[in-house]
Amino acid sequence: MKKKMNIVVVGLGNIGSYFYNYLRKNKKILFNKTNTEPNIVYVSAKSLGKKRNLKIPKKLWLKNCLSATKMKNVDIIIELIGGADGIAKKLVVQALSNKKHVITANKALVAKYGNQLAKIAEKNRVNFEFEAAVCGGIPIIRSIKEGLIANNISKIYGILNGTSNYILTSMDKDKLEYKDALSRAKELGYAESNPASDINGEDVASKLKILTALSFNSFINNKSIHIEGIKDIDQTDINNANQLGYKIKLIGIAELLNNKIIQRVHPALIKNNLYIAKINGVLNAVIAESKPVGQTVLQGEGAGAGPTTSSLISDLCSVLRGNIKFPFVISNIKRKIALFETINNKKFSVYLRLDVKDKHGILSDIAKVMAKNKVSIKRLIQNPTENKKNSSIVIITHHAKSLSLVKVVQTLKNKKYTVSKPKLIRIEEI
Amino acid sequence: MKKKMNIVVVGLGNIGSYFYNYLRKNKKILFNKTNTEPNIVYVSAKSLGKKRNLKIPKKLWLKNCLSATKMKNVDIIIELIGGADGIAKKLVVQALSNKKHVITANKALVAKYGNQLAKIAEKNRVNFEFEAAVCGGIPIIRSIKEGLIANNISKIYGILNGTSNYILTSMDKDKLEYKDALSRAKELGYAESNPASDINGEDVASKLKILTALSFNSFINNKSIHIEGIKDIDQTDINNANQLGYKIKLIGIAELLNNKIIQRVHPALIKNNLYIAKINGVLNAVIAESKPVGQTVLQGEGAGAGPTTSSLISDLCSVLRGNIKFPFVISNIKRKIALFETINNKKFSVYLRLDVKDKHGILSDIAKVMAKNKVSIKRLIQNPTENKKNSSIVIITHHAKSLSLVKVVQTLKNKKYTVSKPKLIRIEEI
Repeated sequence: MKKKMNIVVVGLGNIGSYFYNYLRKNKKILFNKTNTEPNIVYVSAKSLGKKRNLKIPKKLWLKNCLSATKMKNVDIIIELIGGADGIAKKLVVQALSNKKHVITANKALVAKYGNQLAKIAEKNRVNFEFEAAVCGGIPIIRSIKEGLIANNISKIYGILNGTSNYILTSMDKDKLEYKDALSRAKELGYAESNPASDINGEDVASKLKILTALSFNSFINNKSIHIEGIKDIDQTDINNANQLGYKIKLIGIAELLNNKIIQRVHPALIKNNLYIAKINGVLNAVIAESKPVGQTVLQGEGAGAGPTTSSLISDLCSVLRGNIKFPFVISNIKRKIALFETINNKKFSVYLRLDVKDKHGILSDIAKVMAKNKVSIKRLIQNPTENKKNSSIVIITHHAKSLSLVKVVQTLKNKKYTVSKPKLIRIEEI
Repeated sequence: MKKKMNIVVVGLGNIGSYFYNYLRKNKKILFNKTNTEPNIVYVSAKSLGKKRNLKIPKKLWLKNCLSATKMKNVDIIIELIGGADGIAKKLVVQALSNKKHVITANKALVAKYGNQLAKIAEKNRVNFEFEAAVCGGIPIIRSIKEGLIANNISKIYGILNGTSNYILTSMDKDKLEYKDALSRAKELGYAESNPASDINGEDVASKLKILTALSFNSFINNKSIHIEGIKDIDQTDINNANQLGYKIKLIGIAELLNNKIIQRVHPALIKNNLYIAKINGVLNAVIAESKPVGQTVLQGEGAGAGPTTSSLISDLCSVLRGNIKFPFVISNIKRKIALFETINNKKFSVYLRLDVKDKHGILSDIAKVMAKNKVSIKRLIQNPTENKKNSSIVIITHHAKSLSLVKVVQTLKNKKYTVSKPKLIRIEEI
């Protein structure tokens, strides 16, 4: 008899609809590749009435998705609702507890409750898979868990959010102001109507926390992570960066320094000849530095229904093959209680931009503030601003402690001669 | 009781020694990740006496590696001997036939006998894994078989050989002549003492044939593949390419055109702002174009004991997890009898370099030959050669059939005014 597994798809938005159609059309080829037939027994979604361009037989509709977690003939639940809490969490917890395999694209959920969910999955010997939660179609999770399993990863980083990268690219290439670049991203469907999490760094942070736990065999750490978004960056910064030979990118980095993990998400100035500086538009790229393999780069589409479905199907095939794996590479009891550290003591060379009144003695005062905090100047450019009443001072500092640099900014912010909030963008040599 | 699998390592060269040491040191962490202990029961190598900087207990030495294929307590055989025929083939055939899992780094073997070996493996329900055979540490095979399993691949290509890429990079960046670049590659350990297969394109061809079969669910095709190496490329070509805005790279490409697969390995002129043009030194990069995911790029170390061990361990963990998979993604009986086509009818724009006597009427004769073969000129640069008796003519053609272009070269080669073999390098827009 043909082996098959029964699937319930919950959530039929953009991704859910694409996934449903894909799975129906490709049932046979997936059977040929896994020896097990993926059989959709139910679908469930909030608004059944909404026109979705989908032909779903009435008998497949399930009113209450939670009931699927108790049905004997259900093997796999695909959670495509979204949101860290609410119904998505309830569904996943109940499904795993009732020995159903779970596949999700929900990065907020995995980042927030991944430790707990992995524990339930392991206890019940079912799969909890989330390739689609990180970087759309790039098979980064499977690569860490399988392709690079031999390696000790010391650093994992990259461009993990297509929306913000599209905005920064448009600001750079087309000289758009931030708000115009954001509008265009919305028009083209690259940004959601509420793009807050893409822009404030939270989306990158969720992905980075998941990658960190996978890379360092640690637990997900939601507390110790530095997060900055891109909304303060303007054309002047983009221009300044270009003149200095840099591009501005929103990056996520997790690295092991002195046996402590530092997680951070922030815009960074990257030398324009480096690989990361050339990742433009909605592309994502992830770079892992590890031993014995060295540097590995994965680049691809970071979002969209097609790429996300590619990842969901990859997870599904892993389940169909009957290959139960630890959700985070390693058993919960073997995961490390890793030490995490803030960025306060990490040293950075940074770009400081100070818009000040054009008066005598200001430069010397700025230099004094910096010296007091042990921050030294590597390069300084002073230009009058457009209205000519003020000056814009751009400073590239030598390496200094992050905390000291932040103190410089705070002190300068309160000076009477400062006309707008000083900016600090870290320079990254990656 | 702790689950374990017994392993025999055959071949203790550079890679075998590194692998043996790695596996001994990382036994515990691999157990934690797979729930099965990888236990080396024997090692076997041609020259037992040779000093290998390895401390191998005497009881582990196995004189005749073939005897391992019949031992009841052996589960997995790691073949690191090399060579398409001889003892390596014998070992793998006997091992698979006797229901032993096989992991190999032997691209020549897999390219030549992969179809047959996959059949034996499937019949005996054991794994036949060869991630280490293609692009060292880049997890490209696992990505095609698992991460990208949902996708229809239409094109797979890249820089698949570190030695030739190192030589071309040295010729470009350091203006070395071909033979000096090759010597340096040998000194640095990037080229073997007999680098023939790296340089004549055979190594890339082996890898490409494997990738083709995996990407298109087809059988390996050894007959229909165009193969050219890099040994005819000189400083003049490198300079000409630079002046025209290109880099010369040795590429492997397999693509589906009108439902037929074309496999080809040759040097190509690539626009210097394209990703592939910037892959320098010993790096490898593979790009897959597929649906629904779009373009996926994987980049990393293409050779060396560390990266190769990374791939071998990835295969080993897949076996330890008890996950028996079809060696080429799909069952033998479901693999497609795909149609392959030569490059003869494919259209290319090419770089033609003709060194000719500096006499009246030659250019018009060249133009006549080209017109006769329906090849038209897009760009032409004529310069006197250093000794000033001859002229060097560089032509960029419009798109024309490969066969016509080759005919042009053959005709011009036999002209009395031609002083050295004309060169044809295809231009690739990738």
